[in-house]
Amino acid sequence: MPGRACSDPEELKSFNVDWLKSVRGCSELLLKPKTAAEVSQILRYCHERNLAVSPQGGNTGLVGGSVPVFDEIILSTALMNQIISFDPVSGILVCQAGCILGKLNEYLEERGFIMPLDLGAKGSCHIGGNVATNAGGLRLLRYGSLRGTVLGLEVVLADGTVLDCLASLRKDNTGYDLKQLFIGSEGTLGVITAVSILCPQKPKAVNLAFLGCQDFSRVQETFTTCRAMLGEILSAFEFMDEKCMELVEKHLGLSNPLRGSPFYVLIETSGSNSSHDEEKLNSFLEQAMTSGLVTDGTVAVDDKKIKTLWSLRERITEALTRDGCVYKYDISLPVGKLYDLVTDMRARLGQSAKNVVGYGHLGDGNLHLNITAESYSHSLLDAIEPYVYEWTARYNGSISAEHGLGFKKKQFIQYSKPNEAVFLMQRFKAMLDPKGILNPYKTLPSSP
Amino acid sequence: MPGRACSDPEELKSFNVDWLKSVRGCSELLLKPKTAAEVSQILRYCHERNLAVSPQGGNTGLVGGSVPVFDEIILSTALMNQIISFDPVSGILVCQAGCILGKLNEYLEERGFIMPLDLGAKGSCHIGGNVATNAGGLRLLRYGSLRGTVLGLEVVLADGTVLDCLASLRKDNTGYDLKQLFIGSEGTLGVITAVSILCPQKPKAVNLAFLGCQDFSRVQETFTTCRAMLGEILSAFEFMDEKCMELVEKHLGLSNPLRGSPFYVLIETSGSNSSHDEEKLNSFLEQAMTSGLVTDGTVAVDDKKIKTLWSLRERITEALTRDGCVYKYDISLPVGKLYDLVTDMRARLGQSAKNVVGYGHLGDGNLHLNITAESYSHSLLDAIEPYVYEWTARYNGSISAEHGLGFKKKQFIQYSKPNEAVFLMQRFKAMLDPKGILNPYKTLPSSP
Repeated sequence: MPGRACSDPEELKSFNVDWLKSVRGCSELLLKPKTAAEVSQILRYCHERNLAVSPQGGNTGLVGGSVPVFDEIILSTALMNQIISFDPVSGILVCQAGCILGKLNEYLEERGFIMPLDLGAKGSCHIGGNVATNAGGLRLLRYGSLRGTVLGLEVVLADGTVLDCLASLRKDNTGYDLKQLFIGSEGTLGVITAVSILCPQKPKAVNLAFLGCQDFSRVQETFTTCRAMLGEILSAFEFMDEKCMELVEKHLGLSNPLRGSPFYVLIETSGSNSSHDEEKLNSFLEQAMTSGLVTDGTVAVDDKKIKTLWSLRERITEALTRDGCVYKYDISLPVGKLYDLVTDMRARLGQSAKNVVGYGHLGDGNLHLNITAESYSHSLLDAIEPYVYEWTARYNGSISAEHGLGFKKKQFIQYSKPNEAVFLMQRFKAMLDPKGILNPYKTLPSSP
Repeated sequence: MPGRACSDPEELKSFNVDWLKSVRGCSELLLKPKTAAEVSQILRYCHERNLAVSPQGGNTGLVGGSVPVFDEIILSTALMNQIISFDPVSGILVCQAGCILGKLNEYLEERGFIMPLDLGAKGSCHIGGNVATNAGGLRLLRYGSLRGTVLGLEVVLADGTVLDCLASLRKDNTGYDLKQLFIGSEGTLGVITAVSILCPQKPKAVNLAFLGCQDFSRVQETFTTCRAMLGEILSAFEFMDEKCMELVEKHLGLSNPLRGSPFYVLIETSGSNSSHDEEKLNSFLEQAMTSGLVTDGTVAVDDKKIKTLWSLRERITEALTRDGCVYKYDISLPVGKLYDLVTDMRARLGQSAKNVVGYGHLGDGNLHLNITAESYSHSLLDAIEPYVYEWTARYNGSISAEHGLGFKKKQFIQYSKPNEAVFLMQRFKAMLDPKGILNPYKTLPSSP
């Protein structure tokens, strides 16, 4: 692969460290294959020689899953960025793993469709990485998870075998659904080289409402009311606490159009008829205002204002990294319990944390709990963990709703999965990657 | 299990034969456990003694997957019919595997929700069987497949290990998604004992349109037009040819409200605002009529007429069984090619078949091709197979869109899956069920 194998330490630097700068490897080799056949050759070679490989997409992961831990060879999908086909009748897109999510969405928008997922990292994350981590994001409430929308995958196994399950069919019940095992396996079972995905039509009308609520119980009730009244056009229901808003204002200079609410919610509708959608949204807003669920609010229909309001939510992660050292938790909980964890943690940590904030995809029961501090400290970490995981396990939650386990959370899997399940996962890993060359030290605790 | 183990040949009769009466086993023992612990005891016992087990739900499968082939012990989920919990905030239902789909739907409707799937067999099929076969059905177009809506499973493995992955969370990325392997595995990898499933809200308004089209290209164009104009409220798009309608009239005495069209389509909308939905439907109908896509039609808004129209579509399977011996094919194809297979087959078989009909879920690219004859004949079968599978493979279709492979289609898997994939499936089977006691002779061809 002339010009596509790199061993220059300077160039390797950014591939060795994750976006949060929390995990750093010391790989001395970066490979950029262009085809599944090249990936197959690489893995066959590495398999024969027991060389470890760390597959990497856009390197936007938040749990240290996308960078080497030691000197693993980095296999980047950056040059696997070709769109293979798009069928406007079925809405099925087939593309290589290294296509950037945002670029795919632009390509589709020109054809009257959109990607079924959307993330803050869309400008750099790769679709292969999205699938490998089963990314959730902002549209899950409406279009469901990648487990439903991904129709086929091409995967290269540890020994170099190319598994071509790149079907473009909505329905196929011929044998076990192998692709599911690779979705969310964080590159530990195989390297995803191409994806077939079902894309929804671009909605003709999009409306956004940004609202203020006086307490979390009103946030919840706003959600159930809005789900009932907006029904099939509801496409996002995000919430954030006032601390989040303070941070995006302070660190990014964004301006909050509302004031003085302890909680904010962002509601998006997407539909095929703008006057119907506006009518539904207005009658919901009237109901929410008159019943006191919502005390303040603003609505956007034009693209520019929609983008501005969305950035208040999407850029929280960025604002947090500017606030200091960040301890990130991505928790699934019953909606009623969601914010109690933030309140509890704030009280528990007191002055030892700089900020404790909560935001996330309320409609999916997904809380992003983030704690910032001036610098990294073992005593602060000990005050947070395993408390946060025990708290989550007590309510049968998930300690990783959408970020995955990667390097940083793998030892906590037992808080969300029984031993029998972890043991079975380890058997799958041993069967598919007997030499353990694929993304080692990630996802699963070592076998006993 | 006093009173729940049966060896009476008379009582066993109906459990030994499938609904189509096409596959008959000679099991001498039927067990009806009530709990996962009992299933675990049974499987541990059978595993130790190398006794084969055929798990059975409502026994409504169409590929001989739910009945013994020889003398396998029948493990029926009939008495595992308890609802464990339902949370009206999240819409998550948790229930035992033997709950009947239609009963679950009634339970949910009383609480303002519905099941995300609906089948003609809803009156007797079990949710465990639905999940084990990854059933598709009439609502897939709107609510997606079980791979997205099933949130958790409790499964008993071949050796009796209980795998508790009965999570009730919309998002959980802690390790590999083991439950997916059991969805659609037809009881060959484990016995599903309980299901956690995300249920949508009951739509406030449902409208049905039953329309006549003059040719298949107009059926297709009706679909793309209707998808664009009805958007998020479209919940079903079914088609059937005139032969289907003749058979439901002749054998079941149903009456077709339209006349003289070679094709009929059934369009359902489900939404949260009846006047908006009617407005959308009417403007679509006007467009479809004036542009000549549709030549005749009737609309239903009241429950009774909706049920009557739906039965024209749902009871085709039943009418076919009364027409004679049925050769059933359940094919996924690109929409544009869907009906060509029916036309080709009709020409190919000529007078040797009684009827060759095509109907199905056009919105999902799923054709049900059915051929009836006075009696079973090897020469007719040889004229159909492998021709139908070769035809499907040529267009990268699936030889089983939703029925599964079971006993009757397992030897044809290679028409839809590459050898590497079949080999990997066989390795999963060998790992999870090393003695091959679970539903033997089903889903996969024997290992080489």
